[in-house]
Amino acid sequence: MSSAALAPATLVALLHGPDQPGLVARVAQWIFERGGNILHADQHRDMEAGIFFQRVEWMPANGAASADTNAFHSFAGSIGMRARVTLSSHRPRVAIFVSKVDHCFHDLALRWKSGDYSCDLVAVISNHRDLEEASRGYGLPFHHIPVTSETKAGAEAAQLELLRSLDVELVILARYMQVLSDDFLKTFDRPVINIHHSFLPAFAGGRPYHQAAARGVKLIGATAHYATAVLDDGPIIQQDVTRVTHRHGVEDLVRKGRDLEKIVLAQAVRWHLESRVLVYGNKTVVFD
Amino acid sequence: MSSAALAPATLVALLHGPDQPGLVARVAQWIFERGGNILHADQHRDMEAGIFFQRVEWMPANGAASADTNAFHSFAGSIGMRARVTLSSHRPRVAIFVSKVDHCFHDLALRWKSGDYSCDLVAVISNHRDLEEASRGYGLPFHHIPVTSETKAGAEAAQLELLRSLDVELVILARYMQVLSDDFLKTFDRPVINIHHSFLPAFAGGRPYHQAAARGVKLIGATAHYATAVLDDGPIIQQDVTRVTHRHGVEDLVRKGRDLEKIVLAQAVRWHLESRVLVYGNKTVVFD
Amino acid sequence: MSSAALAPATLVALLHGPDQPGLVARVAQWIFERGGNILHADQHRDMEAGIFFQRVEWMPANGAASADTNAFHSFAGSIGMRARVTLSSHRPRVAIFVSKVDHCFHDLALRWKSGDYSCDLVAVISNHRDLEEASRGYGLPFHHIPVTSETKAGAEAAQLELLRSLDVELVILARYMQVLSDDFLKTFDRPVINIHHSFLPAFAGGRPYHQAAARGVKLIGATAHYATAVLDDGPIIQQDVTRVTHRHGVEDLVRKGRDLEKIVLAQAVRWHLESRVLVYGNKTVVFD
Amino acid sequence: MSSAALAPATLVALLHGPDQPGLVARVAQWIFERGGNILHADQHRDMEAGIFFQRVEWMPANGAASADTNAFHSFAGSIGMRARVTLSSHRPRVAIFVSKVDHCFHDLALRWKSGDYSCDLVAVISNHRDLEEASRGYGLPFHHIPVTSETKAGAEAAQLELLRSLDVELVILARYMQVLSDDFLKTFDRPVINIHHSFLPAFAGGRPYHQAAARGVKLIGATAHYATAVLDDGPIIQQDVTRVTHRHGVEDLVRKGRDLEKIVLAQAVRWHLESRVLVYGNKTVVFD
Repeated sequence: MSSAALAPATLVALLHGPDQPGLVARVAQWIFERGGNILHADQHRDMEAGIFFQRVEWMPANGAASADTNAFHSFAGSIGMRARVTLSSHRPRVAIFVSKVDHCFHDLALRWKSGDYSCDLVAVISNHRDLEEASRGYGLPFHHIPVTSETKAGAEAAQLELLRSLDVELVILARYMQVLSDDFLKTFDRPVINIHHSFLPAFAGGRPYHQAAARGVKLIGATAHYATAVLDDGPIIQQDVTRVTHRHGVEDLVRKGRDLEKIVLAQAVRWHLESRVLVYGNKTVVFD
Repeated sequence: MSSAALAPATLVALLHGPDQPGLVARVAQWIFERGGNILHADQHRDMEAGIFFQRVEWMPANGAASADTNAFHSFAGSIGMRARVTLSSHRPRVAIFVSKVDHCFHDLALRWKSGDYSCDLVAVISNHRDLEEASRGYGLPFHHIPVTSETKAGAEAAQLELLRSLDVELVILARYMQVLSDDFLKTFDRPVINIHHSFLPAFAGGRPYHQAAARGVKLIGATAHYATAVLDDGPIIQQDVTRVTHRHGVEDLVRKGRDLEKIVLAQAVRWHLESRVLVYGNKTVVFD
Repeated sequence: MSSAALAPATLVALLHGPDQPGLVARVAQWIFERGGNILHADQHRDMEAGIFFQRVEWMPANGAASADTNAFHSFAGSIGMRARVTLSSHRPRVAIFVSKVDHCFHDLALRWKSGDYSCDLVAVISNHRDLEEASRGYGLPFHHIPVTSETKAGAEAAQLELLRSLDVELVILARYMQVLSDDFLKTFDRPVINIHHSFLPAFAGGRPYHQAAARGVKLIGATAHYATAVLDDGPIIQQDVTRVTHRHGVEDLVRKGRDLEKIVLAQAVRWHLESRVLVYGNKTVVFD
Repeated sequence: MSSAALAPATLVALLHGPDQPGLVARVAQWIFERGGNILHADQHRDMEAGIFFQRVEWMPANGAASADTNAFHSFAGSIGMRARVTLSSHRPRVAIFVSKVDHCFHDLALRWKSGDYSCDLVAVISNHRDLEEASRGYGLPFHHIPVTSETKAGAEAAQLELLRSLDVELVILARYMQVLSDDFLKTFDRPVINIHHSFLPAFAGGRPYHQAAARGVKLIGATAHYATAVLDDGPIIQQDVTRVTHRHGVEDLVRKGRDLEKIVLAQAVRWHLESRVLVYGNKTVVFD
């Protein structure tokens, strides 16, 4: 699980498709025959659905990384699998969307600065100016794109244009307080990770801590998930909870929730960047 | 928090009402003036609602326990509080409702046999005969009252008559698979603790582990609550969760959930028996 | 992870040895060529020590299970690996050692009766008679072998003779309050799982809850480990903790600890029975 | 538990001494008679040691805060109690000691900037210059006081002089990699909170994550405690753990431990600043 920053590049494939006998052996054999050495391989079968899932990481033969990447796609297709192959030295270009609340933003930025994340933070995009100075303090380009109900379509167009021009491969919604439209998600067509401040599916929608306080729950939670067209209903990547009592008012839930949100989002981003998350249907397989 | 089995009897009052200055002092002073000594006192203010809650436990003067119990009710009324006062040596009469699933039943029975619970288990009531022999093994009277959709009203009448004749003060639904009617709850008019196998309010209703597997959550939970007319919506006493992954099928969730259910229900029952749970509105204050 | 009670028998191999390129492929290829289908394969590399670990579970070709078991041992040797191969339909013969404390005993017996454990409980062995009746209630043969400091050698000889005659493959110390001698462990020469009521290595030795209370820790723990000649120092299989406060006296720690001990021991036994635990040096690799 | 930043000032008293009947009533009565209103009162009895502990927070009569503070000390003495009384509007002056590792430092600074902590951070003191710029970025005065084994006595003298001149009331060791001498602690004579990166008493001393990896534990921990002359043996304020597996190498333990250390230290500092921690002997009572 450790960072492979200085290690030679490896290849990671995430594949899934209809289960059939011999899949593990065929993948291992394919890699072996091309001079590769498997470092990690983890697979899962959804017995009910008859689907096979695998994450395999291998050290390719000298100089073969690029050729292997393409060849593996063909090979995977030949055994009925869909595959995504990533070179470990590839650093995805990432944009963070924020509003005014700053704890997740600082947390992500500090982890990135300390070398925890193998990615390039290329933009901070916000509908407010509150985090402009902090962004620049981290050396991160800040883009202010205001959003009102009247200007939402235009704002999203501007965001999309910016993401396109920067070739952003992942968007992180770090307590961004606007709902992205279905159109936005379809046009961007790349992963968007959101942090919701409740244990989904409990308390979807707005003001989840107020909902939790009203219901008198004894645990509050946070959920990191991929954003989809249905609000707070996308595939869940990670969740965690913390204990609360009657002594905690809404503002205490908010405060305690901040620590949850930071840790849950940070873990989800880390797993995504390490190609550990495979989405199928509305669920995820996380090869941790 | 330790069992006071052999200690002299103490009094425990749970009180709540409109907040006003001096309440803590007035209660303490009342007890002091009657020769009592406060062992524990814990209070809470709901600032928004302006309600004061207190659990106070004291050693009454010699021979004063019974008189103090009545006098405290009058005193509480005089300061605008509703109070429930319990003598620690009182052992409530408890009935357990079960169906076929037995893990919560065994767990409660073993804890009771080992002296963890200061109560008398006076009946096991079931719509099936599966746990009859196990009940008798623990020395517990077993009552078989079958329930079908046609006979439900009659079955509930029989249950109520049995509870009345045994003077049952608390019913525990230990994975009893029938929904008690609103009429039953109103007629019984004493606390009924239920264990629901999900983190409420997520996955209320039937087959919660199937619902959880379908949604792809990363944690499953269990919730102990007081039963009310609205299914799975009563005041929550205790909740807990455990981590699951894509590797866990529904039967694994069921198995892992059993440990959660046992511990959450056992804790809720313990708190209730120790007069630590105060219900107001649809929430609880747990003085743990 | 679900119980495979009614499924066709599979083979599970645990292997480890010096790491070298191509191991995953060679194992997969070996199984594939003999007509087997890999259901699960999980491997780990200890980079520092240069050791490769694998748990692989496969469905052998019809009728090949027994031949494969032997052949796999030879194959593993040929690639420098030590292997243990188990047929999933094999039910190990297990003995439980107890003294007077009964919570872990009841917990294991109930899980076993409910079909959670794929093993045969063939004996309960105790230095006291307290659990004799309870054992018979579960249909388990009970053997009373008293132990005093003077009779310890003879008692251990009697225990060993009993284990030998019953062909016991696993001993579980379910809060057995005697230390097994080095000689006993060497002669038995099969796994012995113990539950220690602390978060080892903190509070090894006697009265760990008293030690914990004296040190003022905020969490108490339990540790399941394989027993070795050095007291409380064997390879750790599973650990867990629970939160305590100043309000908890020693008897509360004992009570809260019971739930920990049950769950930690139950999980360790389950992993062991499913061939998920590989010991090397003084540590374990748990393929969960 | 919420921050009372804008609320009128309250008084908080922490008191302890020999237990005797009527203490709760006498304290409540004293406050009531002076026109105060108790907001929170929490008490604890160490039954074995016969010691009474209380945290009581009250709203004094208009203008009486200062007089009450002094009067309460006399009153507490008259009932045999030692007391510490704090005005909630008082903002203690705090210094943070750091070395090179920065995660706890950033975490504390960000919480402080967001208003979570009711204190004034008046100095960052370090034996290295690594965090100088970051400190200035937060507007915090940075002091570089190098320490070598030869210069340690002089360095500590310089630190003490700085703390004295700034009237520092609390020192936080945020992964400061030097052991403070017994002399330093005696001369400073005010609380020093340290974060140790293990579940004490396991793995006291240096390189605890290496020790944990070598022992093969399944959980790693962090402990916040008051520093005393005996290394890693002071009164524990807060502890927490997180699960690790064989897959985690030492560098993963370090990374995962960082999140634990931040949260455990942040919680301990918060409790201390809210006058919730009462030390007696080598333990703490935390009124949370």
